[in-house]
Amino acid sequence: MRIDNLQYANWSPKIFQQMREGGLNAVHVTIAYHENFRETVLNIEQWNQWFERHSDLIMMGRTASDVDEARQTGRTAIFFGLQNPSPIEDDIGLVDILHTLGVRFMQLTYNNQSLLSTGCYESTDTGITRMGKQVIREMNRVGLVIDMSHSADRSTIEASDISERPIAITHANPFEWSPSLRNKKSDVIRAVTENGGMLGFSIYPHHLKDKSDCTLTSFCEMIARTADEYGIAHLGIGSDLCQDHPDSVVEWMRMGRWTREIDYGEGSASLSGFPAMPDWFNDNRDFGNLESGLRDVGMNGEEVDAIMGGNWYRFYAEYFVPVNPG
Amino acid sequence: MRIDNLQYANWSPKIFQQMREGGLNAVHVTIAYHENFRETVLNIEQWNQWFERHSDLIMMGRTASDVDEARQTGRTAIFFGLQNPSPIEDDIGLVDILHTLGVRFMQLTYNNQSLLSTGCYESTDTGITRMGKQVIREMNRVGLVIDMSHSADRSTIEASDISERPIAITHANPFEWSPSLRNKKSDVIRAVTENGGMLGFSIYPHHLKDKSDCTLTSFCEMIARTADEYGIAHLGIGSDLCQDHPDSVVEWMRMGRWTREIDYGEGSASLSGFPAMPDWFNDNRDFGNLESGLRDVGMNGEEVDAIMGGNWYRFYAEYFVPVNPG
Repeated sequence: MRIDNLQYANWSPKIFQQMREGGLNAVHVTIAYHENFRETVLNIEQWNQWFERHSDLIMMGRTASDVDEARQTGRTAIFFGLQNPSPIEDDIGLVDILHTLGVRFMQLTYNNQSLLSTGCYESTDTGITRMGKQVIREMNRVGLVIDMSHSADRSTIEASDISERPIAITHANPFEWSPSLRNKKSDVIRAVTENGGMLGFSIYPHHLKDKSDCTLTSFCEMIARTADEYGIAHLGIGSDLCQDHPDSVVEWMRMGRWTREIDYGEGSASLSGFPAMPDWFNDNRDFGNLESGLRDVGMNGEEVDAIMGGNWYRFYAEYFVPVNPG
Repeated sequence: MRIDNLQYANWSPKIFQQMREGGLNAVHVTIAYHENFRETVLNIEQWNQWFERHSDLIMMGRTASDVDEARQTGRTAIFFGLQNPSPIEDDIGLVDILHTLGVRFMQLTYNNQSLLSTGCYESTDTGITRMGKQVIREMNRVGLVIDMSHSADRSTIEASDISERPIAITHANPFEWSPSLRNKKSDVIRAVTENGGMLGFSIYPHHLKDKSDCTLTSFCEMIARTADEYGIAHLGIGSDLCQDHPDSVVEWMRMGRWTREIDYGEGSASLSGFPAMPDWFNDNRDFGNLESGLRDVGMNGEEVDAIMGGNWYRFYAEYFVPVNPG
């Protein structure tokens, strides 16, 4: 079982083909960074076209059983997610609507303060807001998973405590391995995993020790240590693969429409674009490298399978459905 | 000169006629509580119809000179304002667009956390956010006045400090006179007025000492004391008159689309609707009572005129225009 629980690529038949070559049974794809509801629906329309035109390679995923179907038919199941609550605008009723349209993860913040909670780039962390508490309850109800990858510490811990269902950090690494604002301190990972939540390891260079020069061994040893510390059942991959995009896209990701000044996010004036990927992970065909790397640091077959997709599969099966279906 | 710097009524020819009977030269009207951009434009379209149909009573106001024109032609100039930044959604470019459409005040929050800062009903006050700092600069640039009536203390003080132009609390009273969450503590009023900003006194019963039973004398004595403390030049009226609305409208004001649970705001389960107005202020015809009340507590003609509209007029003249026009 191979599941990558976070990608945002410049999607194309080439990439869908690479997913097949990499043996991906499912991929959670970002369909919104700063889009409002209507723009998010446009992105879903685009995916509907791809599902029609490339039905030999990909299919829409709504439940864990779609991963099984994809596996049986030699395809990759695509699950939708939002990196920002901008698609629900200020309307709690859109939580249910977006779940019906197939959305399965939603970040409560993307770097900045949102209506719901605080992003990791703000100087003050207000925790979960009044609307945030309401929205968490509604996300729990319909089966839309809370993702706190780009959120601030207090907000993440509060979300994990307030949520009645486990939450996820779909793409980040431990701060103690690589101290970036986007990586997660141990009390944050503890709060999420203790409540049954998941951490997906990111291969985006700004989240890696030594960035683009990070070695596969360093990455896999970090995974093994994290498994020892928090329990292997709570860990998976969320590669954050941003393939084939021009640098204008990383500007959109960082700046959306919220500022008239340049914001470099995790980059800098001298490194403003997408960073180069490490040589062992350039696209979906490289999941085999990752699997070999995990074996090389001493994981057995069962453990490798859990990290590579088994854990996400179990999480999908439990939390993509409403609390009281029917 | 009579200017009421905050009303939200169920507008009708009857009310426009009452504005004339009350001698109002200008009224700042709320055109959005939770509306998004498109919905706000719909509300402007509705006002455009009223301006056409009732051009004998009202006219659109964009600058202080429109107040002069309204005065000379026996009409009331209507200035648009937003009680929430929801109309700019997450798009800083909409600040300029909305100013061009005539909007002259925008609250950075309405009770809850916004993308820009914190509302007075949140438990934690994050101050001005990353986007908030950008939007304040843009509002300064185009001449859209920052209104912090429904904001939390730290956010208000920070807004006043960060803004390069004076800001306003269009409708609230001193907390020490009537301790409600919406009224303002002395350090907040101090921060706003010291920077040249304005405080508009509210006659909404939840902001009054003894609520609906508040006497005209108590209200006017409070104004006189506030003038002694912060300087009369910074004070005006923002009555918060919410005339002729059904109680469903106060539900919209409080709950918008952000919650699935009932929120009573300043009310309560037993007093969930609009509260009864004090007997000395029911509609626009009662501004004469207010003027008499101010004289009765010892203000001279010049002082009364400053409070009743002169100060707002001067503020409009200075701050509704871009920093570097042309």
